[in-house]
Amino acid sequence: MTDRPPLIALLTDFGTTDAYVAAMKGVIHTLAPQAHIVDITHEINPQDVRQAAYVLLTTCPYFPLHTIFVAVVDPGVGTERRAIAASCVHGRFIGPDNGIFSYVFTGNPATALVEITNPAYILKRRSNTFHGRDIFAPAAAHLANGVPLDALGPAAAEVAALPPPRLEIAKGHIKGEVIYIDRFGNAVTSVGSLVWNGETHLTLLPRFGASTHPTRFTTKARVSIGSVVVRGVRPSYGHVAPGTLLALVNSAGQLEVAVNQGSAAQILGIAVGDAVSVRLE
Amino acid sequence: MTDRPPLIALLTDFGTTDAYVAAMKGVIHTLAPQAHIVDITHEINPQDVRQAAYVLLTTCPYFPLHTIFVAVVDPGVGTERRAIAASCVHGRFIGPDNGIFSYVFTGNPATALVEITNPAYILKRRSNTFHGRDIFAPAAAHLANGVPLDALGPAAAEVAALPPPRLEIAKGHIKGEVIYIDRFGNAVTSVGSLVWNGETHLTLLPRFGASTHPTRFTTKARVSIGSVVVRGVRPSYGHVAPGTLLALVNSAGQLEVAVNQGSAAQILGIAVGDAVSVRLE
Amino acid sequence: MTDRPPLIALLTDFGTTDAYVAAMKGVIHTLAPQAHIVDITHEINPQDVRQAAYVLLTTCPYFPLHTIFVAVVDPGVGTERRAIAASCVHGRFIGPDNGIFSYVFTGNPATALVEITNPAYILKRRSNTFHGRDIFAPAAAHLANGVPLDALGPAAAEVAALPPPRLEIAKGHIKGEVIYIDRFGNAVTSVGSLVWNGETHLTLLPRFGASTHPTRFTTKARVSIGSVVVRGVRPSYGHVAPGTLLALVNSAGQLEVAVNQGSAAQILGIAVGDAVSVRLE
Repeated sequence: MTDRPPLIALLTDFGTTDAYVAAMKGVIHTLAPQAHIVDITHEINPQDVRQAAYVLLTTCPYFPLHTIFVAVVDPGVGTERRAIAASCVHGRFIGPDNGIFSYVFTGNPATALVEITNPAYILKRRSNTFHGRDIFAPAAAHLANGVPLDALGPAAAEVAALPPPRLEIAKGHIKGEVIYIDRFGNAVTSVGSLVWNGETHLTLLPRFGASTHPTRFTTKARVSIGSVVVRGVRPSYGHVAPGTLLALVNSAGQLEVAVNQGSAAQILGIAVGDAVSVRLE
Repeated sequence: MTDRPPLIALLTDFGTTDAYVAAMKGVIHTLAPQAHIVDITHEINPQDVRQAAYVLLTTCPYFPLHTIFVAVVDPGVGTERRAIAASCVHGRFIGPDNGIFSYVFTGNPATALVEITNPAYILKRRSNTFHGRDIFAPAAAHLANGVPLDALGPAAAEVAALPPPRLEIAKGHIKGEVIYIDRFGNAVTSVGSLVWNGETHLTLLPRFGASTHPTRFTTKARVSIGSVVVRGVRPSYGHVAPGTLLALVNSAGQLEVAVNQGSAAQILGIAVGDAVSVRLE
Repeated sequence: MTDRPPLIALLTDFGTTDAYVAAMKGVIHTLAPQAHIVDITHEINPQDVRQAAYVLLTTCPYFPLHTIFVAVVDPGVGTERRAIAASCVHGRFIGPDNGIFSYVFTGNPATALVEITNPAYILKRRSNTFHGRDIFAPAAAHLANGVPLDALGPAAAEVAALPPPRLEIAKGHIKGEVIYIDRFGNAVTSVGSLVWNGETHLTLLPRFGASTHPTRFTTKARVSIGSVVVRGVRPSYGHVAPGTLLALVNSAGQLEVAVNQGSAAQILGIAVGDAVSVRLE
């Protein structure tokens, strides 16, 4: 497909009420007018690098391999933290070196990694507070135009890494934590990625945590969260009555606690970081 | 125009805080990189199929005829509800068969209707909980690439239908309900679609409800909502002083109760479903 | 670049919960299917023309010169206020003549200005309440297709102007006001645009206010806001400890009061319009 336009995907904590994201898009459209731009989300909680890392991990596999991901959750902007560009099996990644890419790179190591320092690819009037506009957006646009990754600056050593979410697997027992709560109040846990085997069994291929040993258990497992125990893992929300609590494997392969047509987070008072345990059967 | 890019319009209740919409877009960009994607809204109230049906009804006429609409408000995902694709005079429509298309199809019957079952056009690793990403987005992308509608699966019978909003027309009197409240607090009613005749008269061409008999009345009609009566129907918000209540014909042709530069919903405590009546003059 | 697609940038107070913006996009895609559309923001406070004018001022310089800006914050829709199209050094601008473009045009006078009246470029079924869809979006699409600006209607005199934000410069003292509070709770002031000179000095090139005399002062200046005095102007947020108040020059060149990884607006109880003063050193 010779005429496939370049694709740049943006992930930030800038919100869309202000025009910060728009300024980044203006820069991209100026430098790479053919590029398509897609928003992953701009509603990452302010400065929550870990939330951004998780969202990027579960979203980037659905994008084409030629995607250039720009991720800017950047509390250290204007300090010594590096600006980096990297590539891995899922595409190219541009942003601050603060761990935002570390969940993606855990299973898919970066095959190239540079520090963005070449002034030819940075806006001339560069601010101290908005590298999304002045460094990251231009870098993405130049890559979209065919500039090779290693032209952006010198090769860099390892990226900064975030601590992984809690995930401990013992015989008959898995301990994890809530890592994300979505708009519907569904509580996504660190227990994953889970694969269904036929109708009655699950296999856990740990995405986070030290062990890579697959753990097989039945859908009769009991999930404890807060003071509540949910019996069994269901295929989808509509398999219980409206208003009823359930556990399921969500669309990212993570164990999720939800309420059909309701908010589990609200009803149970769950927050990110709360402990979850699974007693296998 | 031989090089007009395909257009895919998305309507969901997923919000834009999470990356669910982004995953759908990633799938579309992967399969149909030339397509343009446009968001209708992703802020439908969770699981509110009826609200989605109304928004789709009033928005789709403004899109080009080659648009592929993907509408996903889908409380029944992963259960027996069908995934469908259809075409009508306004374009092609893809989503769950739960009534979401029934307001559009009321005046514009589907000319083709299939159940999406062909595995060639569904993602291989299909989840039980996210058919927007795994079934509907791929179907839209394949249509954008020129796959014919009937390749997606077998012809289907009637789509599921929602009950229409309340609209009763008697001599000298119209009874309806509030069907939508917008960001400005404007209360959109089921009374429409209304056409201005010169300066002083309105004709009601019922969009909902059994009667299709046009009803003609003057702009001196009195509109009752809650405990308030508004005298007269105005051309626009700025025709009354700021802070003043008015009735007008909105941009979708529906009777609307509003406050100039204020929120009618807040001031009057109006909610969707509240009764509205119009006494004709 | 002969195949650079036209670019239309949208700025409104419509929000993205309703489908008003989508209807505008549908009209643009219908008339100018090749155009790329980009959102500046749709979350301008309802009817806040001044906020929109400021956002447009600071964002438009980052867009390509061929951009067509459509700005619709339009409390006077359906009254006698004119619909206008204009061009200046930053691009072409379409919207209501209510002052929304006056901040952009202050330093960059309009080189062409017309009233949009030509029915050939207005939707046939034009509403009284939604000129964004019926007048402004079609005008932008036709310009994108190559229609010249002066085909949209007759030449118009001066645009409506908003009062500029407060900015008074005396010897040793600058008085201004808070003009914008962003998602992070950063309080942007009317004091700008500021240029860093080496490490220790700032020059104020007044963007608003009568004086155009540059004012030079050191980064030791003291900024007063509410009952608080902040000592010194820092390069970026991360130059103070998390939770600490600071003053800095933001990415638009305006003096800003912020809290590193916190919300200055919340902590100090600051609102738009609050007085700010800078005592120079």
